[in-house]
Amino acid sequence: MTIEIVAVGDELLNGITVNTNATFISRKLSESGYAVGRHTVLPDRSPALEEGLREALSRSALVITTGGLGPTCDDVTRDAAAKIFSSSFHTDAELEKELFTRFGGKLKSLADQARVPSKALLLKNRIGTASGLLFSEGGKTLVLMPGVPQEMRPMLENELLPLLPNYYAKGEATISQMVHFGLLFEDHVDPTLRELQVRFPQMEFGIYPAYGFLSVRLTSKDVNAIRACKEELERIFSQYLFEDTEGKIERAVHTLFTKNGWTLACAESCTGGQIAAKLTSIPGASNFFLASLVTYANAMKEEFLGVKSDTLRVHGSVSQEAAREMAEGTLQRSGADVAIAISGIAGPDGGTAEKPVGTVWVAVARKKEDTQ
Amino acid sequence: MTIEIVAVGDELLNGITVNTNATFISRKLSESGYAVGRHTVLPDRSPALEEGLREALSRSALVITTGGLGPTCDDVTRDAAAKIFSSSFHTDAELEKELFTRFGGKLKSLADQARVPSKALLLKNRIGTASGLLFSEGGKTLVLMPGVPQEMRPMLENELLPLLPNYYAKGEATISQMVHFGLLFEDHVDPTLRELQVRFPQMEFGIYPAYGFLSVRLTSKDVNAIRACKEELERIFSQYLFEDTEGKIERAVHTLFTKNGWTLACAESCTGGQIAAKLTSIPGASNFFLASLVTYANAMKEEFLGVKSDTLRVHGSVSQEAAREMAEGTLQRSGADVAIAISGIAGPDGGTAEKPVGTVWVAVARKKEDTQ
Repeated sequence: MTIEIVAVGDELLNGITVNTNATFISRKLSESGYAVGRHTVLPDRSPALEEGLREALSRSALVITTGGLGPTCDDVTRDAAAKIFSSSFHTDAELEKELFTRFGGKLKSLADQARVPSKALLLKNRIGTASGLLFSEGGKTLVLMPGVPQEMRPMLENELLPLLPNYYAKGEATISQMVHFGLLFEDHVDPTLRELQVRFPQMEFGIYPAYGFLSVRLTSKDVNAIRACKEELERIFSQYLFEDTEGKIERAVHTLFTKNGWTLACAESCTGGQIAAKLTSIPGASNFFLASLVTYANAMKEEFLGVKSDTLRVHGSVSQEAAREMAEGTLQRSGADVAIAISGIAGPDGGTAEKPVGTVWVAVARKKEDTQ
Repeated sequence: MTIEIVAVGDELLNGITVNTNATFISRKLSESGYAVGRHTVLPDRSPALEEGLREALSRSALVITTGGLGPTCDDVTRDAAAKIFSSSFHTDAELEKELFTRFGGKLKSLADQARVPSKALLLKNRIGTASGLLFSEGGKTLVLMPGVPQEMRPMLENELLPLLPNYYAKGEATISQMVHFGLLFEDHVDPTLRELQVRFPQMEFGIYPAYGFLSVRLTSKDVNAIRACKEELERIFSQYLFEDTEGKIERAVHTLFTKNGWTLACAESCTGGQIAAKLTSIPGASNFFLASLVTYANAMKEEFLGVKSDTLRVHGSVSQEAAREMAEGTLQRSGADVAIAISGIAGPDGGTAEKPVGTVWVAVARKKEDTQ
């Protein structure tokens, strides 16, 4: 008996929307020790939807769906689920009152959203109007959540996960730990993992390469084996290691700067604000992050960072000299402890034989130290 | 009879990797007039994998898989498929020679990758080592492609799509068009769609709400009906409409600014560089986008934008006054035609009773016009 995640929506089957909901739910379940056995995406029409849900329930003890709970004509998951569990509908007066209090009389659909299947337990939606629904009968549980990630995510974490042990037994606990590396490649780590596999035959290893990153997943029922393997990997590849439970380099930067009490300012050109956006995506970034000067046009590098026009004319903005002046100007004007500047040719255009697309200069300036 | 896309991999079921392959394949098929009926994600182990593939083939005439074709121990899709189609293996001498020519003697796995199921047609992989495989028997076709998107995408477009008409009849061509709106909600558009549905009973409508956005998909076999519905929606909701085929607001901004020959500079606080990152994600942003000053700390708003310390002390950085000074300072210093400033309380901390989390001030300054 496994868990199956079903996303409902033609926008997924048409390739308009990426199914990040299944990924998010899988990750949260996995972190809580639940194993997911399958993902499915179904169209938002019956009979295909109803048949797909029945199939999923025949395979899995717990089926979690997202999408198709809104008030419009293509929102049919609720009806399909009610039909499968032979449930009638009733108006939940309390819910209706609450929806009107929160959204006022503006939305005509509120009365609709307060009509709920009588056999379902409601999961609170504190953001939008569609309640989550939980059906459970004969050892089979079907959970319906909204498809909008901003509504689904808090519902999963605050409403569904605490309830789940009442409906689904996770079985023997397997534990997983991730170890994250930067600039390390599969080929380098593979021999070590094969060696560890011989010494720890019950351990499962997963290798997840990404652009510039590599994560190793250690899975076992034996917490000591996991610890031993993790320590060995961290020791052998210590220079590539970065510490963060989610493998986010921005969180590792966050930890490094706040631990040392340093402040950071950036000057970005080719990255166009992505460094700032990543760093500020972690709550508490204001503890170390002062500013990023996204100086896309050359004139802006002069105006805001004090880069010399001569430097730009002679060496170009994508050059060691320009990156150095960007970093030093940022350090001086911002008063930060560390300044990082990045300038490159992002493409698709703008490359030359001398400076092809992909050429990047990075400079790091630190108070009282030489710029690198 | 429909098409089903199956992605193979525990990393998808664990929530480590997002299944963008299914989205990409769906979009490409959809653009070529093929309808996808289901997505499935299966673990990279049999019997679950083999059973899942058999199920998919019993439901659908064409099943396209990604993943599990590599040389490592968790790559088992090829074996499962060969078993289902009762195929033996042989070494393809030509493929082996080509792999050795391209990759040299470095990779031990090349001989492995040249052993292919005898009943399968090979699809060329011009990037990596794993060939795609196409099995077809008794009206059922199973296609295996690698999971690495950089390998799968060209294989799909250059090898599989041209072959597909030999194996799968797309049926009557349905056409889809999207219309994109900003700040329009499901409730507002729903009555119009219901009315259009009565007048155009053969038309299918899809509503795709996202945070701040809403897209409507018009699907039909009748191109005139689509045009009529699209025009009516654009007329009724003209003030919410933005023109971009992919529904990207950043592309609409791009078009607006380049069409008018305006330049733009931003001052970001709570958005932390996200506006700049979005705008520069569209190639050619340098035609209108000059800079974004991501002044996260208050002192930076003074230093780089000339916001008065009195303003920050009296009104705070999240205030009409501060946003106005940010925008005007940005306009003046950057020399842009338009400057947009945004300052708000992003949360999770920093909210007060007077300025709760979510409070945002936006100011727009334009040359020779009053700041709004």
